[in-house]
Amino acid sequence: MLSKLVVIGVGLIGGSFALDLKRAGLVGQVVGVGRSPENLARAMQLKVIDLAEQDAATAVRDADLVLLATPVGQMDAVLARIAPALPRHTLVTDAGSTKRDVAALYRKHLGDSLDRCLPAHPIAGSDLSGAAAARYGLYEGRKVVLCPLPETSADTLARISALWQACSAHLVVLDAAEHDAVFAAVSHMPHLLAFAYMNTVLNRPDADTCLALAASGFRDFSRIAGSHPEMWRDIALANRDGLLEDLRAYRAELDSLIAQLQQADADGMTAKFERASQARSAWGKG
Amino acid sequence: MLSKLVVIGVGLIGGSFALDLKRAGLVGQVVGVGRSPENLARAMQLKVIDLAEQDAATAVRDADLVLLATPVGQMDAVLARIAPALPRHTLVTDAGSTKRDVAALYRKHLGDSLDRCLPAHPIAGSDLSGAAAARYGLYEGRKVVLCPLPETSADTLARISALWQACSAHLVVLDAAEHDAVFAAVSHMPHLLAFAYMNTVLNRPDADTCLALAASGFRDFSRIAGSHPEMWRDIALANRDGLLEDLRAYRAELDSLIAQLQQADADGMTAKFERASQARSAWGKG
Repeated sequence: MLSKLVVIGVGLIGGSFALDLKRAGLVGQVVGVGRSPENLARAMQLKVIDLAEQDAATAVRDADLVLLATPVGQMDAVLARIAPALPRHTLVTDAGSTKRDVAALYRKHLGDSLDRCLPAHPIAGSDLSGAAAARYGLYEGRKVVLCPLPETSADTLARISALWQACSAHLVVLDAAEHDAVFAAVSHMPHLLAFAYMNTVLNRPDADTCLALAASGFRDFSRIAGSHPEMWRDIALANRDGLLEDLRAYRAELDSLIAQLQQADADGMTAKFERASQARSAWGKG
Repeated sequence: MLSKLVVIGVGLIGGSFALDLKRAGLVGQVVGVGRSPENLARAMQLKVIDLAEQDAATAVRDADLVLLATPVGQMDAVLARIAPALPRHTLVTDAGSTKRDVAALYRKHLGDSLDRCLPAHPIAGSDLSGAAAARYGLYEGRKVVLCPLPETSADTLARISALWQACSAHLVVLDAAEHDAVFAAVSHMPHLLAFAYMNTVLNRPDADTCLALAASGFRDFSRIAGSHPEMWRDIALANRDGLLEDLRAYRAELDSLIAQLQQADADGMTAKFERASQARSAWGKG
Protein backbone atom coordinates (compact mmCIF):
# COMPACT_ATOMS: atom_id res chain seq x y z
CA MET A 1 0.00 0.00 0.00
CA LEU A 2 1.32 3.39 -1.03
CA SER A 3 0.10 6.42 0.87
CA LYS A 4 1.16 8.75 -1.92
CA LEU A 5 1.95 8.01 -5.55
CA VAL A 6 3.35 10.83 -7.68
CA VAL A 7 2.90 10.51 -11.41
CA ILE A 8 5.01 12.96 -13.39
CA GLY A 9 3.46 13.12 -16.84
CA VAL A 10 -0.22 12.23 -16.59
CA GLY A 11 -1.03 10.62 -19.91
CA LEU A 12 -2.00 7.20 -21.21
CA ILE A 13 0.84 5.40 -19.42
CA GLY A 14 1.04 7.21 -16.10
CA GLY A 15 -2.70 7.79 -15.83
CA SER A 16 -3.61 4.17 -16.52
CA PHE A 17 -1.10 2.97 -13.91
CA ALA A 18 -2.68 5.28 -11.33
CA LEU A 19 -6.23 4.19 -12.19
CA ASP A 20 -5.44 0.49 -11.79
CA LEU A 21 -3.62 0.96 -8.48
CA LYS A 22 -6.46 3.05 -7.10
CA ARG A 23 -9.01 0.46 -8.10
CA ALA A 24 -6.88 -2.28 -6.53
CA GLY A 25 -6.81 -0.29 -3.30
CA LEU A 26 -3.04 -0.15 -3.41
CA VAL A 27 -2.66 3.61 -3.28
CA GLY A 28 -4.06 6.33 -1.04
CA GLN A 29 -3.45 9.60 -2.86
CA VAL A 30 -2.35 10.10 -6.46
CA VAL A 31 -0.62 13.39 -7.20
CA GLY A 32 -0.22 14.32 -10.85
CA VAL A 33 2.50 16.63 -12.11
CA GLY A 34 2.65 18.11 -15.57
CA ARG A 35 3.40 21.15 -17.67
CA SER A 36 -0.11 21.55 -19.03
CA PRO A 37 -2.68 22.92 -16.56
CA GLU A 38 -5.45 21.86 -18.98
CA ASN A 39 -4.27 18.26 -18.99
CA LEU A 40 -4.00 18.20 -15.19
CA ALA A 41 -7.48 19.69 -14.87
CA ARG A 42 -8.79 16.99 -17.20
CA ALA A 43 -6.99 14.34 -15.12
CA MET A 44 -8.65 15.69 -11.95
CA GLN A 45 -12.05 15.78 -13.62
CA LEU A 46 -11.66 12.16 -14.80
CA LYS A 47 -10.45 11.13 -11.31
CA VAL A 48 -7.19 9.85 -12.74
CA ILE A 49 -5.42 11.91 -10.04
CA ASP A 50 -6.51 13.28 -6.67
CA LEU A 51 -4.33 16.35 -6.69
CA ALA A 52 -2.59 18.38 -9.40
CA GLU A 53 0.78 19.98 -8.87
CA GLN A 54 2.81 22.12 -11.28
CA ASP A 55 6.07 21.79 -9.40
CA ALA A 56 7.62 18.32 -9.31
CA ALA A 57 9.86 19.13 -6.31
CA THR A 58 6.86 20.14 -4.22
CA ALA A 59 4.89 17.11 -5.34
CA VAL A 60 7.46 14.48 -4.35
CA ARG A 61 7.54 15.45 -0.66
CA ASP A 62 6.23 12.47 1.35
CA ALA A 63 5.90 10.38 -1.81
CA ASP A 64 6.22 6.60 -1.49
CA LEU A 65 6.70 6.12 -5.19
CA VAL A 66 7.44 8.46 -8.09
CA LEU A 67 6.65 7.30 -11.61
CA LEU A 68 8.36 9.30 -14.34
CA ALA A 69 5.98 9.00 -17.26
CA THR A 70 7.12 11.97 -19.34
CA PRO A 71 8.87 11.56 -22.67
CA VAL A 72 12.47 10.48 -22.06
CA GLY A 73 13.71 13.84 -23.35
CA GLN A 74 12.28 15.58 -20.27
CA MET A 75 13.60 13.18 -17.65
CA ASP A 76 16.98 14.84 -17.16
CA ALA A 77 15.32 18.10 -16.12
CA VAL A 78 12.69 16.33 -14.02
CA LEU A 79 15.26 14.27 -12.12
CA ALA A 80 17.44 17.34 -11.58
CA ARG A 81 14.43 19.12 -10.12
CA ILE A 82 13.20 16.35 -7.81
CA ALA A 83 16.52 14.84 -6.66
CA PRO A 84 17.18 17.38 -3.86
CA ALA A 85 13.56 17.14 -2.63
CA LEU A 86 13.13 13.35 -2.64
CA PRO A 87 12.67 11.74 0.76
CA ARG A 88 15.18 8.94 1.37
CA HIS A 89 12.48 6.23 1.44
CA THR A 90 10.86 7.16 -1.89
CA LEU A 91 11.10 4.63 -4.71
CA VAL A 92 11.62 5.98 -8.23
CA THR A 93 10.70 4.25 -11.44
CA ASP A 94 9.85 5.32 -14.99
CA ALA A 95 8.12 4.33 -18.19
CA GLY A 96 10.71 5.50 -20.69
CA SER A 97 10.97 3.90 -24.13
CA THR A 98 14.77 3.64 -23.91
CA LYS A 99 16.64 2.31 -20.92
CA ARG A 100 20.40 2.84 -21.12
CA ASP A 101 19.97 6.61 -21.22
CA VAL A 102 17.43 6.62 -18.39
CA ALA A 103 19.69 4.37 -16.31
CA ALA A 104 22.46 6.93 -16.84
CA LEU A 105 20.14 9.70 -15.64
CA TYR A 106 19.38 7.85 -12.39
CA ARG A 107 23.11 7.47 -11.95
CA LYS A 108 23.67 11.18 -12.63
CA HIS A 109 21.01 12.54 -10.33
CA LEU A 110 20.45 9.86 -7.70
CA GLY A 111 23.88 8.25 -7.71
CA ASP A 112 24.02 7.97 -3.94
CA SER A 113 20.73 6.09 -3.65
CA LEU A 114 20.40 3.88 -6.70
CA ASP A 115 19.07 1.06 -4.53
CA ARG A 116 15.61 2.64 -4.73
CA CYS A 117 15.62 3.25 -8.51
CA LEU A 118 14.14 0.88 -11.09
CA PRO A 119 14.26 1.71 -14.81
CA ALA A 120 11.21 0.18 -16.48
CA HIS A 121 9.26 0.16 -19.74
CA PRO A 122 5.59 -0.83 -19.91
CA ILE A 123 4.85 -2.00 -23.48
CA ALA A 124 1.52 -0.35 -24.02
CA GLY A 125 1.98 2.43 -26.50
CA SER A 126 -0.82 3.92 -28.52
CA ASP A 127 -1.53 6.78 -30.90
CA LEU A 128 -3.55 8.28 -28.06
CA SER A 129 -2.03 10.58 -25.49
CA GLY A 130 -2.98 12.87 -22.64
CA ALA A 131 -4.93 12.21 -19.45
CA ALA A 132 -8.12 11.54 -21.42
CA ALA A 133 -6.47 8.44 -22.90
CA ALA A 134 -5.88 6.86 -19.46
CA ARG A 135 -8.04 3.83 -18.76
CA TYR A 136 -8.53 0.90 -16.46
CA GLY A 137 -7.01 -2.38 -17.60
CA LEU A 138 -4.56 -0.94 -20.09
CA TYR A 139 -1.84 -3.23 -18.79
CA GLU A 140 -3.85 -6.42 -18.66
CA GLY A 141 -1.74 -9.09 -20.33
CA ARG A 142 0.76 -6.48 -21.52
CA LYS A 143 4.45 -6.85 -20.88
CA VAL A 144 6.40 -4.55 -18.59
CA VAL A 145 10.16 -4.74 -19.02
CA LEU A 146 12.13 -4.11 -15.84
CA CYS A 147 15.82 -3.21 -16.20
CA PRO A 148 17.20 -3.18 -12.66
CA LEU A 149 20.50 -1.41 -12.09
CA PRO A 150 23.25 -3.44 -10.39
CA GLU A 151 22.48 -1.28 -7.35
CA THR A 152 18.67 -1.66 -7.39
CA SER A 153 17.69 -3.40 -4.15
CA ALA A 154 15.70 -6.62 -4.13
CA ASP A 155 13.10 -4.84 -2.02
CA THR A 156 12.67 -2.06 -4.61
CA LEU A 157 12.35 -4.63 -7.39
CA ALA A 158 9.83 -6.68 -5.43
CA ARG A 159 7.66 -3.73 -4.39
CA ILE A 160 7.46 -2.18 -7.87
CA SER A 161 6.95 -5.60 -9.47
CA ALA A 162 3.98 -6.19 -7.17
CA LEU A 163 2.36 -2.96 -8.36
CA TRP A 164 2.69 -3.87 -12.04
CA GLN A 165 1.37 -7.34 -11.30
CA ALA A 166 -1.64 -5.73 -9.63
CA CYS A 167 -2.23 -4.11 -13.05
CA SER A 168 -2.22 -7.68 -14.51
CA ALA A 169 0.97 -6.98 -16.47
CA HIS A 170 3.49 -9.70 -17.32
CA LEU A 171 6.95 -8.83 -16.08
CA VAL A 172 10.12 -9.36 -18.09
CA VAL A 173 13.56 -8.59 -16.66
CA LEU A 174 16.20 -7.52 -19.17
CA ASP A 175 19.53 -5.78 -19.10
CA ALA A 176 19.17 -2.15 -20.27
CA ALA A 177 21.44 -2.69 -23.29
CA GLU A 178 19.52 -5.80 -24.30
CA HIS A 179 16.26 -3.86 -23.92
CA ASP A 180 17.47 -1.07 -26.15
CA ALA A 181 18.70 -3.49 -28.82
CA VAL A 182 15.40 -5.38 -28.89
CA PHE A 183 13.24 -2.26 -29.01
CA ALA A 184 15.39 -0.67 -31.69
CA ALA A 185 14.46 -3.69 -33.82
CA VAL A 186 10.77 -4.14 -33.00
CA SER A 187 9.70 -0.57 -32.28
CA HIS A 188 12.12 2.24 -33.05
CA MET A 189 13.22 0.99 -36.47
CA PRO A 190 9.66 0.37 -37.77
CA HIS A 191 8.64 3.86 -36.68
CA LEU A 192 11.47 5.39 -38.69
CA LEU A 193 10.74 3.12 -41.65
CA ALA A 194 7.08 4.13 -41.53
CA PHE A 195 7.92 7.85 -41.40
CA ALA A 196 10.22 7.36 -44.41
CA TYR A 197 7.53 5.41 -46.25
CA MET A 198 4.88 8.07 -45.66
CA ASN A 199 7.24 10.78 -46.92
CA THR A 200 8.07 8.72 -50.01
CA VAL A 201 4.38 8.64 -50.88
CA LEU A 202 3.99 12.37 -50.15
CA ASN A 203 6.90 13.16 -52.48
CA ARG A 204 5.00 11.75 -55.46
CA PRO A 205 3.22 14.05 -57.90
CA ASP A 206 0.17 11.73 -57.65
CA ALA A 207 0.24 11.64 -53.83
CA ASP A 208 -3.41 12.73 -53.55
CA THR A 209 -4.63 9.92 -55.79
CA CYS A 210 -2.44 7.49 -53.87
CA LEU A 211 -3.94 8.51 -50.53
CA ALA A 212 -7.45 8.43 -51.95
CA LEU A 213 -7.02 4.82 -53.09
CA ALA A 214 -4.93 3.49 -50.21
CA ALA A 215 -6.65 0.67 -48.33
CA SER A 216 -6.09 -1.69 -45.42
CA GLY A 217 -2.50 -2.71 -46.22
CA PHE A 218 -1.49 0.94 -46.30
CA ARG A 219 -3.56 1.69 -43.21
CA ASP A 220 -1.78 -0.83 -41.01
CA PHE A 221 1.68 -0.44 -42.46
CA SER A 222 1.64 3.34 -42.09
CA ARG A 223 -0.28 3.61 -38.79
CA ILE A 224 2.82 4.31 -36.70
CA ALA A 225 3.83 7.09 -39.11
CA GLY A 226 1.08 9.05 -37.33
CA SER A 227 3.05 8.90 -34.07
CA HIS A 228 4.27 11.90 -32.10
CA PRO A 229 7.18 13.52 -34.00
CA GLU A 230 9.17 14.93 -31.05
CA MET A 231 8.74 11.82 -28.95
CA TRP A 232 10.11 9.62 -31.71
CA ARG A 233 12.91 12.03 -32.55
CA ASP A 234 14.01 11.81 -28.91
CA ILE A 235 13.77 8.03 -28.86
CA ALA A 236 15.73 7.77 -32.10
CA LEU A 237 18.47 10.05 -30.79
CA ALA A 238 18.57 8.28 -27.42
CA ASN A 239 19.03 4.90 -29.11
CA ARG A 240 21.05 6.20 -32.02
CA ASP A 241 23.90 3.70 -32.29
CA GLY A 242 21.78 0.55 -32.16
CA LEU A 243 19.17 2.08 -34.39
CA LEU A 244 21.72 3.12 -37.02
CA GLU A 245 23.05 -0.43 -37.07
CA ASP A 246 19.51 -1.78 -37.57
CA LEU A 247 18.66 0.72 -40.28
CA ARG A 248 21.81 -0.25 -42.15
CA ALA A 249 20.94 -3.93 -41.83
CA TYR A 250 17.48 -3.11 -43.18
CA ARG A 251 18.97 -1.18 -46.07
CA ALA A 252 21.15 -4.18 -46.96
CA GLU A 253 18.07 -6.43 -46.93
CA LEU A 254 16.20 -3.92 -49.08
CA ASP A 255 19.12 -3.68 -51.52
CA SER A 256 19.14 -7.43 -51.86
CA LEU A 257 15.42 -7.43 -52.63
CA ILE A 258 15.81 -4.60 -55.14
CA ALA A 259 18.57 -6.61 -56.86
CA GLN A 260 16.36 -9.70 -57.02
CA LEU A 261 13.48 -7.73 -58.48
CA GLN A 262 15.80 -6.04 -60.96
CA GLN A 263 16.99 -9.48 -62.11
CA ALA A 264 13.45 -10.92 -62.01
CA ASP A 265 14.84 -13.60 -59.68
CA ALA A 266 11.50 -15.27 -58.93
CA ASP A 267 12.98 -18.09 -56.84
CA GLY A 268 15.07 -15.76 -54.73
CA MET A 269 12.08 -13.51 -54.08
CA THR A 270 9.85 -16.44 -53.23
CA ALA A 271 12.41 -17.70 -50.70
CA LYS A 272 12.60 -14.30 -49.02
CA PHE A 273 8.84 -13.75 -49.00
CA GLU A 274 8.18 -17.27 -47.68
CA ARG A 275 10.62 -16.87 -44.82
CA ALA A 276 9.01 -13.59 -43.81
CA SER A 277 5.46 -14.79 -44.29
CA GLN A 278 5.88 -18.00 -42.33
CA ALA A 279 7.52 -16.23 -39.41
CA ARG A 280 4.93 -13.45 -39.36
CA SER A 281 2.02 -15.90 -39.54
CA ALA A 282 3.52 -17.97 -36.72
CA TRP A 283 3.96 -14.82 -34.63
CA GLY A 284 0.35 -13.82 -35.23
CA LYS A 285 -0.82 -17.16 -33.88
CA GLY A 286 1.58 -17.10 -30.93
CA MET B 1 -29.91 -9.76 -64.65
CA LEU B 2 -27.31 -12.39 -65.54
CA SER B 3 -28.56 -15.90 -66.26
CA LYS B 4 -25.12 -17.34 -65.69
CA LEU B 5 -22.10 -15.90 -63.91
CA VAL B 6 -18.84 -17.82 -64.09
CA VAL B 7 -16.32 -17.12 -61.35
CA ILE B 8 -12.86 -18.49 -62.11
CA GLY B 9 -11.05 -18.64 -58.79
CA VAL B 10 -13.59 -18.95 -55.99
CA GLY B 11 -11.98 -17.21 -53.06
CA LEU B 12 -12.56 -14.11 -50.97
CA ILE B 13 -12.87 -11.79 -53.98
CA GLY B 14 -14.77 -13.91 -56.50
CA GLY B 15 -16.92 -15.64 -53.90
CA SER B 16 -18.00 -12.42 -52.21
CA PHE B 17 -18.94 -10.89 -55.58
CA ALA B 18 -21.12 -13.93 -56.33
CA LEU B 19 -22.79 -13.85 -52.90
CA ASP B 20 -23.78 -10.19 -53.18
CA LEU B 21 -25.14 -10.53 -56.72
CA LYS B 22 -27.17 -13.58 -55.74
CA ARG B 23 -28.64 -11.77 -52.74
CA ALA B 24 -29.46 -8.78 -54.94
CA GLY B 25 -31.30 -11.10 -57.32
CA LEU B 26 -29.03 -10.06 -60.16
CA VAL B 27 -27.78 -13.49 -61.11
CA GLY B 28 -29.48 -16.81 -61.85
CA GLN B 29 -26.76 -19.43 -61.71
CA VAL B 30 -23.22 -19.05 -60.36
CA VAL B 31 -20.69 -21.51 -61.74
CA GLY B 32 -17.38 -21.75 -59.90
CA VAL B 33 -14.17 -22.91 -61.56
CA GLY B 34 -10.97 -23.76 -59.74
CA ARG B 35 -8.03 -26.08 -59.48
CA SER B 36 -8.86 -27.34 -56.01
CA PRO B 37 -11.81 -29.76 -55.81
CA GLU B 38 -11.83 -29.28 -52.01
CA ASN B 39 -12.23 -25.53 -52.34
CA LEU B 40 -15.02 -25.93 -54.92
CA ALA B 41 -16.80 -28.44 -52.68
CA ARG B 42 -16.55 -25.96 -49.81
CA ALA B 43 -17.94 -23.21 -52.07
CA MET B 44 -20.90 -25.44 -52.99
CA GLN B 45 -21.52 -26.33 -49.36
CA LEU B 46 -21.48 -22.64 -48.36
CA LYS B 47 -23.79 -21.81 -51.30
CA VAL B 48 -21.23 -19.39 -52.71
CA ILE B 49 -21.67 -21.17 -56.06
CA ASP B 50 -24.45 -23.29 -57.55
CA LEU B 51 -22.29 -25.51 -59.68
CA ALA B 52 -18.63 -26.50 -59.64
CA GLU B 53 -16.63 -27.06 -62.80
CA GLN B 54 -12.99 -28.10 -63.17
CA ASP B 55 -12.67 -27.06 -66.78
CA ALA B 56 -12.92 -23.34 -67.50
CA ALA B 57 -13.71 -23.84 -71.20
CA THR B 58 -16.72 -26.01 -70.37
CA ALA B 59 -17.88 -23.59 -67.70
CA VAL B 60 -17.97 -20.47 -69.87
CA ARG B 61 -20.45 -21.90 -72.40
CA ASP B 62 -23.63 -19.78 -72.19
CA ALA B 63 -22.03 -17.44 -69.63
CA ASP B 64 -23.23 -13.84 -69.49
CA LEU B 65 -20.26 -12.71 -67.47
CA VAL B 66 -16.93 -14.26 -66.60
CA LEU B 67 -15.01 -12.92 -63.60
CA LEU B 68 -11.35 -13.88 -63.51
CA ALA B 69 -10.54 -13.91 -59.82
CA THR B 70 -7.40 -16.05 -59.85
CA PRO B 71 -3.96 -14.65 -59.05
CA VAL B 72 -2.73 -12.62 -62.01
CA GLY B 73 -0.04 -15.22 -62.67
CA GLN B 74 -2.67 -17.74 -63.78
CA MET B 75 -4.66 -15.45 -66.05
CA ASP B 76 -2.63 -16.04 -69.19
CA ALA B 77 -3.39 -19.78 -69.07
CA VAL B 78 -7.03 -19.22 -68.12
CA LEU B 79 -7.65 -16.76 -70.95
CA ALA B 80 -5.91 -19.07 -73.43
CA ARG B 81 -8.19 -21.88 -72.31
CA ILE B 82 -11.50 -19.98 -72.40
CA ALA B 83 -10.96 -17.72 -75.43
CA PRO B 84 -11.99 -20.31 -78.08
CA ALA B 85 -15.04 -21.36 -76.03
CA LEU B 86 -16.40 -17.92 -75.10
CA PRO B 87 -19.77 -17.03 -76.63
CA ARG B 88 -19.68 -13.72 -78.49
CA HIS B 89 -22.04 -12.00 -76.06
CA THR B 90 -20.13 -12.89 -72.89
CA LEU B 91 -18.60 -10.04 -70.91
CA VAL B 92 -15.21 -10.65 -69.32
CA THR B 93 -13.76 -8.84 -66.33
CA ASP B 94 -11.20 -9.59 -63.63
CA ALA B 95 -10.04 -8.72 -60.16
CA GLY B 96 -6.29 -8.69 -60.75
CA SER B 97 -3.98 -6.58 -58.57
CA THR B 98 -2.09 -5.20 -61.58
CA LYS B 99 -3.73 -3.83 -64.68
CA ARG B 100 -1.30 -3.14 -67.53
CA ASP B 101 -0.32 -6.80 -67.70
CA VAL B 102 -3.92 -8.00 -67.52
CA ALA B 103 -4.94 -5.51 -70.22
CA ALA B 104 -2.18 -6.99 -72.39
CA LEU B 105 -3.58 -10.47 -71.79
CA TYR B 106 -7.06 -9.43 -72.95
CA ARG B 107 -5.40 -7.99 -76.02
CA LYS B 108 -3.45 -11.21 -76.60
CA HIS B 109 -6.31 -13.65 -76.20
CA LEU B 110 -9.45 -11.66 -77.01
CA GLY B 111 -7.98 -9.11 -79.42
CA ASP B 112 -10.89 -9.34 -81.82
CA SER B 113 -13.54 -8.60 -79.18
CA LEU B 114 -12.06 -6.20 -76.68
CA ASP B 115 -15.32 -4.26 -76.59
CA ARG B 116 -16.64 -6.79 -74.05
CA CYS B 117 -13.55 -6.81 -71.80
CA LEU B 118 -13.12 -4.67 -68.69
CA PRO B 119 -9.95 -4.87 -66.58
CA ALA B 120 -10.85 -4.11 -62.96
CA HIS B 121 -9.46 -4.22 -59.43
CA PRO B 122 -11.67 -4.40 -56.36
CA ILE B 123 -9.71 -3.01 -53.40
CA ALA B 124 -10.69 -5.50 -50.74
CA GLY B 125 -7.67 -7.64 -49.98
CA SER B 126 -7.27 -9.61 -46.80
CA ASP B 127 -4.96 -12.18 -45.24
CA LEU B 128 -7.85 -14.62 -45.70
CA SER B 129 -8.26 -16.68 -48.82
CA GLY B 130 -10.32 -19.54 -50.23
CA ALA B 131 -14.08 -19.97 -50.61
CA ALA B 132 -14.57 -20.04 -46.84
CA ALA B 133 -13.42 -16.40 -46.70
CA ALA B 134 -16.20 -15.22 -49.06
CA ARG B 135 -18.86 -13.13 -47.36
CA TYR B 136 -21.80 -10.85 -47.98
CA GLY B 137 -21.07 -7.15 -47.92
CA LEU B 138 -17.32 -7.40 -48.46
CA TYR B 139 -17.48 -4.58 -51.00
CA GLU B 140 -19.68 -2.22 -49.03
CA GLY B 141 -18.01 1.18 -49.23
CA ARG B 142 -14.89 -0.33 -50.80
CA LYS B 143 -13.41 1.06 -53.97
CA VAL B 144 -13.38 -0.84 -57.22
CA VAL B 145 -10.99 0.55 -59.82
CA LEU B 146 -12.13 0.10 -63.42
CA CYS B 147 -9.50 0.44 -66.15
CA PRO B 148 -11.44 0.32 -69.42
CA LEU B 149 -9.46 -0.42 -72.59
CA PRO B 150 -9.82 2.07 -75.43
CA GLU B 151 -11.94 -0.64 -77.08
CA THR B 152 -14.18 -1.42 -74.07
CA SER B 153 -17.74 -0.55 -75.06
CA ALA B 154 -19.84 1.86 -73.06
CA ASP B 155 -22.39 -0.93 -72.66
CA THR B 156 -19.80 -3.28 -71.12
CA LEU B 157 -18.63 -0.56 -68.77
CA ALA B 158 -22.18 0.32 -67.75
CA ARG B 159 -23.31 -3.26 -67.17
CA ILE B 160 -20.29 -4.29 -65.09
CA SER B 161 -20.39 -0.99 -63.19
CA ALA B 162 -24.00 -1.68 -62.25
CA LEU B 163 -23.03 -5.05 -60.76
CA TRP B 164 -20.30 -3.55 -58.59
CA GLN B 165 -22.66 -0.80 -57.51
CA ALA B 166 -25.14 -3.48 -56.49
CA CYS B 167 -22.37 -4.69 -54.14
CA SER B 168 -22.32 -1.12 -52.70
CA ALA B 169 -18.80 -0.53 -54.02
CA HIS B 170 -17.54 2.92 -55.00
CA LEU B 171 -16.28 2.99 -58.56
CA VAL B 172 -13.11 4.76 -59.66
CA VAL B 173 -12.05 4.87 -63.30
CA LEU B 174 -8.31 5.03 -63.93
CA ASP B 175 -5.96 4.43 -66.79
CA ALA B 176 -4.16 1.06 -66.34
CA ALA B 177 -0.73 2.72 -66.13
CA GLU B 178 -1.99 5.19 -63.55
CA HIS B 179 -3.53 2.32 -61.58
CA ASP B 180 -0.27 0.40 -61.54
CA ALA B 181 1.72 3.47 -60.45
CA VAL B 182 -0.66 4.23 -57.59
CA PHE B 183 -0.82 0.64 -56.33
CA ALA B 184 2.94 0.23 -56.56
CA ALA B 185 3.12 3.10 -54.08
CA VAL B 186 0.29 2.25 -51.67
CA SER B 187 0.23 -1.54 -51.83
CA HIS B 188 3.05 -3.31 -53.65
CA MET B 189 5.92 -1.29 -52.18
CA PRO B 190 4.73 -1.59 -48.56
CA HIS B 191 4.39 -5.35 -48.96
CA LEU B 192 8.00 -5.61 -50.12
CA LEU B 193 9.17 -3.26 -47.38
CA ALA B 194 7.34 -5.35 -44.79
CA PHE B 195 8.85 -8.61 -46.09
CA ALA B 196 12.31 -6.98 -45.92
CA TYR B 197 11.62 -5.70 -42.41
CA MET B 198 10.50 -9.10 -41.15
CA ASN B 199 13.63 -10.73 -42.59
CA THR B 200 15.83 -8.06 -41.01
CA VAL B 201 14.42 -8.98 -37.61
CA LEU B 202 14.78 -12.72 -38.32
CA ASN B 203 18.45 -12.22 -39.24
CA ARG B 204 19.23 -11.02 -35.71
CA PRO B 205 20.83 -13.37 -33.19
CA ASP B 206 18.22 -12.16 -30.64
CA ALA B 207 15.28 -12.64 -33.04
CA ASP B 208 13.36 -14.83 -30.58
CA THR B 209 13.54 -12.23 -27.81
CA CYS B 210 12.53 -9.56 -30.32
CA LEU B 211 9.45 -11.49 -31.41
CA ALA B 212 8.54 -12.28 -27.80
CA LEU B 213 8.55 -8.58 -26.88
CA ALA B 214 7.10 -7.14 -30.08
CA ALA B 215 3.82 -5.30 -29.50
CA SER B 216 1.16 -3.36 -31.37
CA GLY B 217 3.49 -1.17 -33.48
CA PHE B 218 5.24 -4.27 -34.76
CA ARG B 219 1.93 -6.08 -35.22
CA ASP B 220 0.45 -3.50 -37.55
CA PHE B 221 3.63 -2.58 -39.39
CA SER B 222 4.48 -6.21 -40.16
CA ARG B 223 0.96 -7.55 -40.77
CA ILE B 224 1.28 -7.56 -44.55
CA ALA B 225 4.57 -9.51 -44.25
CA GLY B 226 2.26 -12.47 -43.54
CA SER B 227 0.80 -12.22 -47.07
CA HIS B 228 0.88 -14.95 -49.69
CA PRO B 229 4.49 -15.28 -51.00
CA GLU B 230 3.76 -16.46 -54.57
CA MET B 231 0.94 -13.98 -55.08
CA TRP B 232 3.15 -11.08 -54.06
CA ARG B 233 6.11 -12.34 -56.06
CA ASP B 234 3.86 -12.34 -59.15
CA ILE B 235 2.51 -8.88 -58.41
CA ALA B 236 6.04 -7.54 -57.87
CA LEU B 237 7.25 -9.03 -61.13
CA ALA B 238 4.18 -7.84 -63.03
CA ASN B 239 4.69 -4.28 -61.80
CA ARG B 240 8.46 -4.43 -61.77
CA ASP B 241 9.49 -1.16 -63.40
CA GLY B 242 7.26 1.13 -61.39
CA LEU B 243 7.97 -0.78 -58.22
CA LEU B 244 11.75 -0.56 -58.72
CA GLU B 245 11.44 3.17 -59.16
CA ASP B 246 9.43 3.44 -55.93
CA LEU B 247 11.81 1.24 -53.97
CA ARG B 248 14.72 3.41 -55.10
CA ALA B 249 12.84 6.54 -54.06
CA TYR B 250 12.19 4.92 -50.68
CA ARG B 251 15.84 3.99 -50.37
CA ALA B 252 16.83 7.62 -51.00
CA GLU B 253 14.39 8.78 -48.30
CA LEU B 254 15.80 6.16 -45.92
CA ASP B 255 19.37 7.22 -46.69
CA SER B 256 18.47 10.81 -45.93
CA LEU B 257 16.98 9.75 -42.58
CA ILE B 258 20.01 7.61 -41.75
CA ALA B 259 22.26 10.62 -42.50
CA GLN B 260 20.18 12.86 -40.23
CA LEU B 261 20.31 10.35 -37.41
CA GLN B 262 24.04 9.85 -37.91
CA GLN B 263 24.52 13.63 -37.61
CA ALA B 264 22.02 13.88 -34.73
CA ASP B 265 20.19 16.47 -36.83
CA ALA B 266 17.23 16.87 -34.47
CA ASP B 267 15.57 19.67 -36.46
CA GLY B 268 15.84 17.80 -39.73
CA MET B 269 14.36 14.67 -38.19
CA THR B 270 11.55 16.61 -36.55
CA ALA B 271 10.65 18.19 -39.88
CA LYS B 272 10.51 14.80 -41.59
CA PHE B 273 8.56 13.13 -38.80
CA GLU B 274 6.10 16.03 -38.57
CA ARG B 275 5.39 15.95 -42.29
CA ALA B 276 4.71 12.22 -42.18
CA SER B 277 2.72 12.33 -38.96
CA GLN B 278 0.46 15.19 -40.01
CA ALA B 279 -0.31 13.58 -43.36
CA ARG B 280 -0.97 10.16 -41.83
CA SER B 281 -3.20 11.60 -39.10
CA ALA B 282 -5.17 13.57 -41.68
CA TRP B 283 -5.55 10.43 -43.81
CA GLY B 284 -6.81 8.47 -40.81
CA LYS B 285 -9.53 11.05 -40.25
CA GLY B 286 -10.43 11.27 -43.93
